[in-house]
This record gives sequence, C-alpha cells and structure tokens, in this order.
Amino acid sequence: MSEALPDGLRRQLAFLAEIDRLKSVVRQSPLVDRSRRENSAEHSWHLALFALVLAEHAPALDVAQVVRLLLVHDIVEIDAGDAPIHAVGQDMAALAEAEQAAARRLFGLLPAAQGAQMLALWQEFEAGETPEARFARALDRLQPLLLNTLTDGGTWTENDVEEQQVIECYGPAIARGSPALWQAAHALVREHFTTRRSF
Amino acid sequence: MSEALPDGLRRQLAFLAEIDRLKSVVRQSPLVDRSRRENSAEHSWHLALFALVLAEHAPALDVAQVVRLLLVHDIVEIDAGDAPIHAVGQDMAALAEAEQAAARRLFGLLPAAQGAQMLALWQEFEAGETPEARFARALDRLQPLLLNTLTDGGTWTENDVEEQQVIECYGPAIARGSPALWQAAHALVREHFTTRRSF
Repeated sequence: MSEALPDGLRRQLAFLAEIDRLKSVVRQSPLVDRSRRENSAEHSWHLALFALVLAEHAPALDVAQVVRLLLVHDIVEIDAGDAPIHAVGQDMAALAEAEQAAARRLFGLLPAAQGAQMLALWQEFEAGETPEARFARALDRLQPLLLNTLTDGGTWTENDVEEQQVIECYGPAIARGSPALWQAAHALVREHFTTRRSF
Repeated sequence: MSEALPDGLRRQLAFLAEIDRLKSVVRQSPLVDRSRRENSAEHSWHLALFALVLAEHAPALDVAQVVRLLLVHDIVEIDAGDAPIHAVGQDMAALAEAEQAAARRLFGLLPAAQGAQMLALWQEFEAGETPEARFARALDRLQPLLLNTLTDGGTWTENDVEEQQVIECYGPAIARGSPALWQAAHALVREHFTTRRSF
C-alpha cells in the first residue's frame, strides 16, 4: 500500500485489500441454481441479510451487532480454510489453533485499537454466549440448511447424511438462537427427507 | 417454499432464497489476485467491511445504517443487471426503470411492512442525500478504485481510461461522502498513473 497515505489509513486499506481473499475460500454449500459452490465472502453477505430479515424470530437483541458478527466471522478462513460441517476426522484442536493465529495476523494488519475491536467481534461469535452471537450462529447453520433443502439435499445428499444426523448437526445451534426458526427449519428437513423416501 | 411454514416466515425464506442469485451477477472489477471478476454479493460484503473499518473518516453518522444500505444496495441487479462504471452509451432512464421494477418485485416477496423497509433502504441509497447514503456511495466508488490500483489499473487499463477521467468519475462521489478518503484515493490514483507513465 502506498507510502503517500497516513499510517492508520494505509493499514486500514491494506486490511481491506487482504480480506479480498475471502472471496476465494470455497465452501461446500451449492448456490440455489447449483451452478457452483458458494464462497465465504458471499456467504457472509447472505447471512447478514438473514439477520436483517429474520431478527423478529429471535429474542430481543441488537441486530446491528449480529450483522457485525456475521460480516467478520469467517475472515479467519483466509488463513485457516473452511471447515465443512459434515467432514469427519477433523483435528478440531489444530483448527482452533490455526484460526487463532489467523485472527492475530489478519486483524493485526489494522491499527491496534481497531484490530482489537475486530478480534473481539470474532471472539464473541466463536464463544456463542451473547444473544447476538447465539443468533448469528443459528443463522450460520440455517443458511446452508435452506440451501440444501432447495438443491435436492445439497451436501446432505453428497455425504449420505440422514435425517437424524441433520437434526443433531443443525438443531442445537439453530434452536439455541431461535426456537421459532428451528421449528420451521425442522419442518423443512422433515419435508425434504419424507419427499426423498417417497421416490 | 414449504406450505408447512407460517406465511410471514415462508415469504422471508423465499426472499432469502431468491437473493441467492446476486452471487451470480458479475461485475467488471477484478479480484485482487486477478483470478476472476467480482460478483455483486461478495462486493456487498466487502463494502460493508469498508464501512466498519473506514467510518472514522466520514462526518458523524450511523455506521449500522451505512452497513444496511450497502447490504441491500445491489439486490435490484438480480433483475436489472450491473451497470459498469465505464460503460458508454447506457440508457440511464431505461436502467432506472428496470431497477424500480426489480425493487418492487424483489422486496415485494417479503411481508408488506418489511418489504417497504427494505425498499426504503434501497431508495435512501439511490437518493444519496443522507450522510449515511453519501458515505455508502463513496465506498461503492472507493472499493473498485482500490481494486484497480492493486491490479495494474484493472478496468481502467481494460477500458483505456485516463487519469482525468478517473478523477471525474470517482472523485465527486467519494469526496461527497468523505473528503479525507478522496484525498487518499486521489493520491493512489496519481501514483498509479505516474508509475504507468514511467514505463
């Protein structure tokens, strides 16, 4: 980044240039039209819209904070990669360590105070303890669930995942953020697997 | 969308499924690594991060509202397409009409009150009169400018656009939202064209 800029702004633009790489982190979920798999940058945008549209189904919370958490939550994947929901045999401790290192490096590109704020957003999402983080994490499960039900099962079909596994894998996080959304999502899951069995 | 869901939620999920198509609207701007062109969904995510990171360079404003405007501002492109900055001979009246129709159809998928709120966000962005809309519009110019300076001129080089045209095309919108950011962006533009001339 140019030396002609003030130091703080130069660091901010360097960060914004670096996170462009999130557009190249490919997730497992298909687009609705099945033309390709989704990347983590557009996934983050989609989730932010889920938050704006579905906030009424959560307990009282700060929607703007949910949006901030979702915009930032996957940035560590630039270094650490995306961990598929249905992957088996992942070394979760190694992944957590890689994500911590990624957060330090990436948010460390920013001016110190701002980098600490961004790190705190990521940590709040990861901890999943505030109402905002619980709802953000619910949406991060609801969105791929919706994509799968719209694409003949998507990653469930690819991975031979059964109804009970879906319920165990998506249910707790969605229900924790919004019981109403889990009730609806559960109905979509049931409908998907019932339809498949009838063929 | 499933008939098993309450009407409001069914409409919300149908909207969220429909806007998945924004991931397939391709813009002119290259990714920083030049592997492909950017799409409008990931562009919207990137802009939201620009807002969170660069808000201090704008006059006092509601950053959360800037983020909302940016998350929604390109959704009409699903029907109306992306209008490249450097395209010549565009029928701007026809484009505006297509975008109005797109806004009615897409936000009309939502429950009425929520659709009206989303429409109002898009209209606020388009009008560019509030401090939040001015800053959002500044970032919508700053981001492709930054991408171009990082990719040997990007769309400027492709379209044989000269320094003075860049200044006229990007300057007013960026300066209107943030004089400080235009000062910096202007320095990046000058540096880019000075370096190119020296070859």
